[in-house]
Amino acid sequence: MNSSNSILREEELGNWRKSHYSSEINPSLEGRTVILMGWISSIRDHGNIQFIMLRDKDGDTQIIAKKGQCPDLVYEQVLQLKEHTSLGVSGKVISQRKAPNGIEIIPLELKVFSIPIQAPPFMVQSRNPAGIDTRLDFRAIDLRRKYLQDIFIIRNNILKYIRTFLSNEKFIEVNTPKIIATASEGGTALFPIFYYEREAFLAQSPQIYKEQLTMAFEKVFEIGPIFRAEPSRTNRHLSEATSIDIESAFVDYNDIMVLLEKMIQFIIKSLSEDDNIKNSPELDIDKKINDNNKSFPRLKYSELTEKLRNIGEKVRWGDDLSPQLIKKLDDDRLNNNFYFITDWPTAAKPFYVKENQDDSKICESFDLMYGSLEISSGSTRISNKEILIDRMKKKGLNLNSFDYHLRIFSYGVPPHAGCGVGLERFLMTLTKIDNIRDAILYPRDIDRLAP
Amino acid sequence: MNSSNSILREEELGNWRKSHYSSEINPSLEGRTVILMGWISSIRDHGNIQFIMLRDKDGDTQIIAKKGQCPDLVYEQVLQLKEHTSLGVSGKVISQRKAPNGIEIIPLELKVFSIPIQAPPFMVQSRNPAGIDTRLDFRAIDLRRKYLQDIFIIRNNILKYIRTFLSNEKFIEVNTPKIIATASEGGTALFPIFYYEREAFLAQSPQIYKEQLTMAFEKVFEIGPIFRAEPSRTNRHLSEATSIDIESAFVDYNDIMVLLEKMIQFIIKSLSEDDNIKNSPELDIDKKINDNNKSFPRLKYSELTEKLRNIGEKVRWGDDLSPQLIKKLDDDRLNNNFYFITDWPTAAKPFYVKENQDDSKICESFDLMYGSLEISSGSTRISNKEILIDRMKKKGLNLNSFDYHLRIFSYGVPPHAGCGVGLERFLMTLTKIDNIRDAILYPRDIDRLAP
Repeated sequence: MNSSNSILREEELGNWRKSHYSSEINPSLEGRTVILMGWISSIRDHGNIQFIMLRDKDGDTQIIAKKGQCPDLVYEQVLQLKEHTSLGVSGKVISQRKAPNGIEIIPLELKVFSIPIQAPPFMVQSRNPAGIDTRLDFRAIDLRRKYLQDIFIIRNNILKYIRTFLSNEKFIEVNTPKIIATASEGGTALFPIFYYEREAFLAQSPQIYKEQLTMAFEKVFEIGPIFRAEPSRTNRHLSEATSIDIESAFVDYNDIMVLLEKMIQFIIKSLSEDDNIKNSPELDIDKKINDNNKSFPRLKYSELTEKLRNIGEKVRWGDDLSPQLIKKLDDDRLNNNFYFITDWPTAAKPFYVKENQDDSKICESFDLMYGSLEISSGSTRISNKEILIDRMKKKGLNLNSFDYHLRIFSYGVPPHAGCGVGLERFLMTLTKIDNIRDAILYPRDIDRLAP
Repeated sequence: MNSSNSILREEELGNWRKSHYSSEINPSLEGRTVILMGWISSIRDHGNIQFIMLRDKDGDTQIIAKKGQCPDLVYEQVLQLKEHTSLGVSGKVISQRKAPNGIEIIPLELKVFSIPIQAPPFMVQSRNPAGIDTRLDFRAIDLRRKYLQDIFIIRNNILKYIRTFLSNEKFIEVNTPKIIATASEGGTALFPIFYYEREAFLAQSPQIYKEQLTMAFEKVFEIGPIFRAEPSRTNRHLSEATSIDIESAFVDYNDIMVLLEKMIQFIIKSLSEDDNIKNSPELDIDKKINDNNKSFPRLKYSELTEKLRNIGEKVRWGDDLSPQLIKKLDDDRLNNNFYFITDWPTAAKPFYVKENQDDSKICESFDLMYGSLEISSGSTRISNKEILIDRMKKKGLNLNSFDYHLRIFSYGVPPHAGCGVGLERFLMTLTKIDNIRDAILYPRDIDRLAP
C-alpha cells in the first residue's frame, strides 16, 4: 500500500460496520460510542487540537482530536490524515452546540480504508471550483460537492413524486426497447448500432411502443434513456437524456396538458414540503409555489408568430420558434414561467400527430415551455390506419420499415394522446442549474463519451 | 373510413370522456348513467339479446342490448360490432349478480372509435393462443390477454416495491449512461455503436458508474436497460434486459446477500398482500410466502463442485456451473427455491471482484440462484487502485481504455459491494412464465429486432 512506512495504513473493512449516519447522531446520544464512516471533507489544525469533518451521504460530523484526550496513536494518525481519505471512526459522542447536528466525536479508534494518492484537481468546497470539463473528467470527485449532491437528491425525489403521481392517476410503468429497427421520430439524429449481423438504431423515444401499449393497458408511462445524435454544443442538449414518457387512451392533447399541469404542481408542492430538500439553496421554487394553483398560460402558435411579426421579427407561419425568437417576446407571462404553445403547424410535427379536424394545416399539439426552454412536447395521436399511412407518405417515410407498427392499427387502436418530458431540462427549471450537464450524473454529448 | 356504408362509422373522441373504469362500477350505482370506454373482448348473440364484454385496463363490463329495451339505432349498431373494436358506451347501470362487478350496462348511445380491419391471427381469450413468434409479431394484441396483463401488472408492482424497499434502506436512485467508451464486464458480447465519428458501445451493466457513485452518495441503485450481444436462443437470455443494480459503500458481499434476502422477502410479502394481485392465477408465491422468514441457503462453490464430483459429474474446480449441472444435484434446498452460491473462483469473475484475503484463488462473490436459474450476481469490489490495476493486467485488459475509471481510484474510493438483479428472470421466479420473452413487453434477441 502507498503509505506502508507511516503509522497510517489502509485496512480492510473487516467486521466494522456503521452504527449511525451523520444525520442520526444528536445530543441525546451524548456519551455513547458510535462508529461513523465516510470521507474527510476538511481538516483544520489548531495546534494541539485537530478538527476533522467526516462527510457521509447525509452530511458532516465533526471529529475533534485533542492531544491527551484521545489515544496517542489516534492523535498521531490524525496528524497524517488527508482530505478525501475514506475513513471509519469509532468514537464517543459529546454535545457541541456549534458543530453540525449539535455534536462532535472524540475518536477512540480509526480505520483508514483508502488513502488518496494525490490531491484532486479542484476543491470540492467551492461552488464553481473548475471548468465543466475538468469537473466532468473527475466526475465522481465533483459529485462530492454539496451543490451537486443537493441537485441529485432533488432529482431522485422528483422521480419519486412523478411515479407517485402517475400511479395515483392509474398509469402503469413500462419498459420498452432501446434497440429499435427504425426511426420513430423521422429519421435524422439516430445512432446506428451493429445488431448481430444487422443495422439497428438507438431509440430516440418510446413513441411507437407507448402508443401500441395504450391498446392493452390504456395508461402507461416510462422513465428511461433516449438517444439523439444531435451535433449541438449548447447548454440545453444532451446526446443521452432521461425522458418521462406518458401515453393515455381515450383522451386528447388538452387532457394531457391538464395532466402535466397537475403533475408539475404536485412535484413543486411535494418538494416544498420535503424537510430534506425544501431548504436546499439549489432549489428555485419560491415563486412557483405561489403560482401553484394557477393553470399555465396557453398560447396558440399563430398568436405567437403574429406577436413576433408585430414587434418586427421576420417569422413566417410554419417557421420553428427558436429560443432566440421566444426571448424577443419579453412577455411577463413567459419569463421564468411554465406555459404551453399549442396548435402547431402540422408540417412542423412528427407523422403520428393528429390534425385539427377543422383545419388540417394545424395539429392537436403542444410544447410545454419554461421561458425559452422546451420541457415537453405532446399531442393527440392518429389512431386511424389510413390517415396514418397517408401522413407517413406525405412525410416521405418508408412504409415497409414501419410494417411492424402499422399492422397493429388493423385491430382497433383507441383514440390516444401523450407527451414526453425531458427530465434534465425539467430539473433545470426547478433548480439553479444553467448547464444541462449538471442535471445528469455522466453527460454525453458530441465531444464527451467518458467517464 | 372502412365502414362508411354501414350504420357503424368511426367517430372522434370529441367531448366524450370516461366517467368510470370497469372496477369503479358496482350495484350501488344502479340507475346511474355512466360512460365507459375500452375494447370489445367478446360478443354473444342470444337471439334478441346481445351481450358485449367491454374490456378496459381494470377488467370486463357486460353490456346487454335487448331489442326494444335499448334505442333501435343502438341495437342495430350492436349487431354489427366486432371483437377488438375500440368503443365508448353511454348507458344505464343495472344490477346483475352473475356479471362482472355485479352489474351490467344498458347502452343508450355508442361511439365507435376504431373498427378492426381484420381479425387478429389468434384469440386473446386463450392461455396459449399461438406460438411465441406469432404472438410477438402482434405483441400489442397479445398483450390484451388477461394472462399477460396480470404478468405486467405484477412486474409494475415489483418495481414499486423494490423502489420503496431501497428508498427505506436509504439508497438513492441514479441513471448512468448506456453509451460507454469501453467494456465494463471484460470485452465480449458488446454491441458497437457509431457515436458521431467514434466507436462506442452499449453498456452491459452500470458497474463502473455505480462503483464510482459510492464515493459521493454511498448507497445507489439503478433500474434500467442492459445490453448483451449473446448469440443465445434459450428461454432465459435476452439481448436487452432490465437490471436492478445496487451498490453500497462500507459493506461487503455478505451484507449485500442479507439485503437481497430482505428485498425479496419484502416483495413477496407485498405481492401477497396486494388485493389487485394476490389472487392472480399467474402469481406463484404460495410456497414462498411460507418460507418467507427463512434466510436463503448459502452453498460454497467448492462444496457444490465436490458434491457434483461425488455423484459422478466431471467438474474441475474452476469450471463454470451450467444449469444442466446444477439440475443434476437434485437437492431439495435448491429445487424451486432461492439460494446463494458463494466464494467463486477469482478467475471466473470480472476484474473488479475482490479476492478473499486468506486465499486469493477464491473471491468475495455470490450468485443468487432460483433452481438452476441465475437471478443475481454480486461481490465485494476492489477499492485499492494498485490491486485493481494488477487484476486488470491479469485479465488482459487495456489499462489505457479504463483511464477515466482508474483515475478516480487515486482519491479515496471506499470499501464497497453490490449486485445486479435481472428483473425478467426474477419475474419468472414469482410467476408461471417459462419463456423469458413473456417477462418483457418487447423482447430482443439474436433473431428479433421488431416490433
